[in-house]
Amino acid sequence: MIEKLSDEARALALANLPEWTVVADPDGISRRFTFPDFVAAFGFMTRVAIVAEKADHHPEWSNVYNRVDMVLTTHDAGGLSQRDIDLAHQVEGLL
Amino acid sequence: MIEKLSDEARALALANLPEWTVVADPDGISRRFTFPDFVAAFGFMTRVAIVAEKADHHPEWSNVYNRVDMVLTTHDAGGLSQRDIDLAHQVEGLL
Repeated sequence: MIEKLSDEARALALANLPEWTVVADPDGISRRFTFPDFVAAFGFMTRVAIVAEKADHHPEWSNVYNRVDMVLTTHDAGGLSQRDIDLAHQVEGLL
Repeated sequence: MIEKLSDEARALALANLPEWTVVADPDGISRRFTFPDFVAAFGFMTRVAIVAEKADHHPEWSNVYNRVDMVLTTHDAGGLSQRDIDLAHQVEGLL
């Protein structure tokens, strides 16, 4: 069973993810990504999709043309967990 | 310049898209798609992405695991246009 991060662990983890913003509902982190066009945006989504499926942890995300909005949260933990932090770093690595 | 559908043309078009719901903001149509899992949902999105790019008309959509929510609207027309109807039929054809 994966657990929510403690306040201390969360603060430490977020310090290393400066581009991400804490969101309240659901408790998690979010980031907006902007690309030159739809093909670039969806190409990014495809790479994230493969990484996410492999990690068995999936984003909540939306896309409008060249923009992708992503929220990472762990429903099983009722909030932000290490799985979200790990996936965020993997997503960063794809940029 | 693409134009918004008249009330008459809209009613006629929507009669042939019974699975789609009219939404107000933005003025358009929406549909929720549910799949067995993430791979199936994202596979569907990938097929839609290719069709949409080819049509040069893109959905506003979100995905959470096995669920895809799609809104079709035409910003240049300020609402629902024939391009949305055409894309909706193409999406239906992918199911």
